Amino acid sequence: VIRAGIAGGSGYVGLELLRYLHGHPNFQVAVITSREHHGQPVGDVHRGLAGITDLHFTDDVANLTNLDLVFTAVPHGESMKLVAQLRAIRSDLPIIDVGADFRISQQQFEQVYGEKHLCPELLQEAVYGVPELYGERVFNARLIANPGCFAHCTILALAPLAMRGLLVGPARVSAVTGSSGSGAHAKAVTHHPDRNDSISAYNVLAHRHVPEIERALSETSPVAIKMVPLSGPFSRGIFATVFATVTDATISVGDIYAEFAAANRFVRLRGTTPRLLDVRGTNFCDMAVHQSGSEVVIISAIDNLGKGAAGNAVQCANLMFGLPEESGLLFPPLAP
Amino acid sequence: VIRAGIAGGSGYVGLELLRYLHGHPNFQVAVITSREHHGQPVGDVHRGLAGITDLHFTDDVANLTNLDLVFTAVPHGESMKLVAQLRAIRSDLPIIDVGADFRISQQQFEQVYGEKHLCPELLQEAVYGVPELYGERVFNARLIANPGCFAHCTILALAPLAMRGLLVGPARVSAVTGSSGSGAHAKAVTHHPDRNDSISAYNVLAHRHVPEIERALSETSPVAIKMVPLSGPFSRGIFATVFATVTDATISVGDIYAEFAAANRFVRLRGTTPRLLDVRGTNFCDMAVHQSGSEVVIISAIDNLGKGAAGNAVQCANLMFGLPEESGLLFPPLAP
Amino acid sequence: VIRAGIAGGSGYVGLELLRYLHGHPNFQVAVITSREHHGQPVGDVHRGLAGITDLHFTDDVANLTNLDLVFTAVPHGESMKLVAQLRAIRSDLPIIDVGADFRISQQQFEQVYGEKHLCPELLQEAVYGVPELYGERVFNARLIANPGCFAHCTILALAPLAMRGLLVGPARVSAVTGSSGSGAHAKAVTHHPDRNDSISAYNVLAHRHVPEIERALSETSPVAIKMVPLSGPFSRGIFATVFATVTDATISVGDIYAEFAAANRFVRLRGTTPRLLDVRGTNFCDMAVHQSGSEVVIISAIDNLGKGAAGNAVQCANLMFGLPEESGLLFPPLAP
Amino acid sequence: VIRAGIAGGSGYVGLELLRYLHGHPNFQVAVITSREHHGQPVGDVHRGLAGITDLHFTDDVANLTNLDLVFTAVPHGESMKLVAQLRAIRSDLPIIDVGADFRISQQQFEQVYGEKHLCPELLQEAVYGVPELYGERVFNARLIANPGCFAHCTILALAPLAMRGLLVGPARVSAVTGSSGSGAHAKAVTHHPDRNDSISAYNVLAHRHVPEIERALSETSPVAIKMVPLSGPFSRGIFATVFATVTDATISVGDIYAEFAAANRFVRLRGTTPRLLDVRGTNFCDMAVHQSGSEVVIISAIDNLGKGAAGNAVQCANLMFGLPEESGLLFPPLAP
Repeated sequence: VIRAGIAGGSGYVGLELLRYLHGHPNFQVAVITSREHHGQPVGDVHRGLAGITDLHFTDDVANLTNLDLVFTAVPHGESMKLVAQLRAIRSDLPIIDVGADFRISQQQFEQVYGEKHLCPELLQEAVYGVPELYGERVFNARLIANPGCFAHCTILALAPLAMRGLLVGPARVSAVTGSSGSGAHAKAVTHHPDRNDSISAYNVLAHRHVPEIERALSETSPVAIKMVPLSGPFSRGIFATVFATVTDATISVGDIYAEFAAANRFVRLRGTTPRLLDVRGTNFCDMAVHQSGSEVVIISAIDNLGKGAAGNAVQCANLMFGLPEESGLLFPPLAP
Repeated sequence: VIRAGIAGGSGYVGLELLRYLHGHPNFQVAVITSREHHGQPVGDVHRGLAGITDLHFTDDVANLTNLDLVFTAVPHGESMKLVAQLRAIRSDLPIIDVGADFRISQQQFEQVYGEKHLCPELLQEAVYGVPELYGERVFNARLIANPGCFAHCTILALAPLAMRGLLVGPARVSAVTGSSGSGAHAKAVTHHPDRNDSISAYNVLAHRHVPEIERALSETSPVAIKMVPLSGPFSRGIFATVFATVTDATISVGDIYAEFAAANRFVRLRGTTPRLLDVRGTNFCDMAVHQSGSEVVIISAIDNLGKGAAGNAVQCANLMFGLPEESGLLFPPLAP
Repeated sequence: VIRAGIAGGSGYVGLELLRYLHGHPNFQVAVITSREHHGQPVGDVHRGLAGITDLHFTDDVANLTNLDLVFTAVPHGESMKLVAQLRAIRSDLPIIDVGADFRISQQQFEQVYGEKHLCPELLQEAVYGVPELYGERVFNARLIANPGCFAHCTILALAPLAMRGLLVGPARVSAVTGSSGSGAHAKAVTHHPDRNDSISAYNVLAHRHVPEIERALSETSPVAIKMVPLSGPFSRGIFATVFATVTDATISVGDIYAEFAAANRFVRLRGTTPRLLDVRGTNFCDMAVHQSGSEVVIISAIDNLGKGAAGNAVQCANLMFGLPEESGLLFPPLAP
Repeated sequence: VIRAGIAGGSGYVGLELLRYLHGHPNFQVAVITSREHHGQPVGDVHRGLAGITDLHFTDDVANLTNLDLVFTAVPHGESMKLVAQLRAIRSDLPIIDVGADFRISQQQFEQVYGEKHLCPELLQEAVYGVPELYGERVFNARLIANPGCFAHCTILALAPLAMRGLLVGPARVSAVTGSSGSGAHAKAVTHHPDRNDSISAYNVLAHRHVPEIERALSETSPVAIKMVPLSGPFSRGIFATVFATVTDATISVGDIYAEFAAANRFVRLRGTTPRLLDVRGTNFCDMAVHQSGSEVVIISAIDNLGKGAAGNAVQCANLMFGLPEESGLLFPPLAP
């Protein structure tokens, strides 16, 4: 058994990590931290877990350093402090950060998040955790930066074309997120009467995940992303419409995506359209691709807490520990 | 034109009063107050009203005292201060309070809301605004206490039996409310990921509206209410299941309700069941009644912001000003 | 009073026309037809209208020909038969068709809908009902083809640029529709467990509204549209993300849209984003525009049954009868 | 490995059985039948299962008779034919029927469902599958009748009082169901625009599950149930408000329920209220109990497809095969 810890376990990502790891044959959550809920049974905070786990929250992060692996799920700006603190105690501690602090370059981070990065050397070490692109690097990593939810959904949609250098001009993305993406605490954007039955946009052409996406997709040649993030009236999921132009109208885009799906256990091609329900509660990314000459539309759907956060983090953990990539992750979605 | 004011106009009840009065042939909103939004155009706060109204919020409540009628829509505890303040400036100002401070006796208020009532003499004057029961009193009133949303839905469901003294034992009520009942500001109970797809109960057997209901229904003989309030995954409406027992299994309950509906413009009998959609955005109370011997089930549905707040307040205003009760109120619901 | 008829009044568009015309100072619905519900009170079928209207459905369309105006709201393929039938009885009958049969050229119609057009001469006569673009033509029309919902939302988003010939390359549209767009009868795509909490795409790059859009926008120079229609988990609304490229990065797109909004009563510019709630139940089209060099994003939101159907039809009717364009249409949305 | 079959596997209960059994350490689905989808991969019909299972649907029910256990999930009236057919081929085949044909007496069945029962001797043999009440009988059974969803939620709510003979007079139940309770095919009651944002009632005081409930609860002394079933705007769950009266106001009802929860792995007491989210996707029944003298309110929540169908069927299967009752069933809900 691989003993894992969750730092910042009272949020939705913490809850979802508990859910994924509960059903995993190799990992076991040994320590879970929360400042706010120190000492409380996990089942009192994450009510659905009552009767399922005996874990209690602790606020002593030092307990995490004796474990085999730590997932950090704390707000941006906090991750870098926490990771530095853990590594100061134990320099070889494997860490998967489900926050935002290790995903982009120091310069990008300081520009996007408006604060100084506190541990550039760890940032240097971090591997961006897209197993479908960087499986080898993830396997060898000690510090993983788990991608943002909008980012991962978009990266997988464009990777087959970007990796081959087939994209011309910017890719345009309109992506709707569920309300759980805003976290476990009530805020204006998750006020039910405003969110129910409505859609709205935010951070148009200026979302923080864009630099992650552009960086991950630009290894072959530079890719630019124009992104419109939308807030949708549902709890879970990211549903992205991606418009791309390819270099040549004779390229058989369908074949390229079929190959990508065949090579990746958690990528499924779904005929005309993916549906959020088909990925809800899972680590799958479902896609459909449509082509009209050199114009291509890729539609991709993930669970923002699954492939967009905890599910992918567990997939990375599998790779880091030499387990089959899909260990503990091949279960049905909750549908309907 | 009757010039009306709205005190506390930045909340959902304020917004809904604007909506009802906008389409009313006799009333016109001349002043609307909000401390938080002082000076702002109403259409900047209630975004849907942009291009429809030129009103601006003011924080000077004295502006209200020159009007023909004031609706007060402020939190409990604030209403009594505000009403006292307005009456100190103009002692005969007609006021309809859509808050909670003038609905029950001083003793009940102080027990239920846990604070001293500041103007018992105004409380004495106040008329409980159920036009279907107290139309005459409303006509003659200068100060109306508009009923609570759970209260009004339950009162109308039981009134036909209670007024005739036909009830035996307590009536049991399970009633689901929409999220707009919690107001315009985000709070834990309206956090979308928790509210969507779920139901929960609160204040079981202890809701603050119970004394209002019991008081209103006990004019003929004492009526006891056992109420379970539920929070539902929708924005608008109260849907109540009411179990009652009548004195005699031979009573034709259906006839009694048919008579009640025939006598009241905003009560509609709906075969097997009412539906929230049929009353959404309106002042209607839709009902169905089922009888099995002396056991009776009444199902009633209102819009919590309509018959449960602003719609009924306007109905009371019509009565106070000698207008037809239904003036400006007979429009279709928004369905679907 | 202008006496209006509604043909095909048992669907959602028929219901919505009743709702709009009920509050209109100049129009009155005198006849409403439905084969299925012949003889039934309207309030038995559209339950929310009980107690509000005394109308009954008839199946005798000849009753419509004595009226001042007829709205036809029947399935595509039926409209052309019905309109021909009505005009055969009375050749100058003003008609607004809220169906699909008179929106595009004969050739396009036969290609898109796969059936022969039965009255090409009426098609020739028909005016495409976008008041914001063709107000003059609408004023002079006797037969209006009301635009499709996806079409109208997209046309208004792009019109300010297209009319000036400022677009380069195709415009790309990802637009989510509410479930009421599929009509009043249950079907697989509106099965609640599948629709709730999910999103899916259909007719990607092949939606029937695309030819309408391209035709309406190409009067200055040819415009191509790449559209991805999505089905969303809400009842009402179309929310469109439109990506466009302009000829010159120095064009001040914001000013162009501000001018467009200022000139059109039912177009509102909304800062960062429109919201479906702000247009729900109304004839408004709310928009936001974002520019990054020559890349432009326009976000537009309408109620599919309002500006996308009945609301716009009434706006056209106002123009046809020389009334102020906004007569009976300036009321608040139902929000929340 | 215990080899299981699912008859009627294309519906929601079939899908949910697949989900539960997929994660079960002891059972494996070897055969799944569907007339409509004969020959198709399961992942083409239950789209979320693509890439997870290689099963194909067959229409040859004879394949089921070589297995260790068969779950039948077919419409009422079909179950009895199918069970008789399977038993004719193999007389000792263990069967768990998740349909309605073996739950009540022959006389009750013929009255409630309006058709003759075709195999009264099998009905005689069938054990009503409430593990919390009849664990011993389930252990010894070869034919289980899995309770209806409304039934199970109500039975567990009242069992602690009913088993002790503490109930006085009828128990009154208002229970809201999610739309998945109406099955996988679109129908009027699941039309999204009607279901979303609304609540309605049906079969008031006349639901088919009432005889099941009364029979299960009347082993100590007769219990009468007055039930109001409601249709709610969510996909999964039954949320019941149960009003009961106990023989004596001094009874400590809280202690009785605490004991019941302590004795039953899938019953959880939840302070003030259960929430649908806490049981979504699981076999748990969450409850809260409130007492005011002899008046008691029990609130209980289950997943209609979990404890209300597939989850409980698997719990019964565990018992039949001598496994720990909770095998494969102790996993977290999908929340949010």
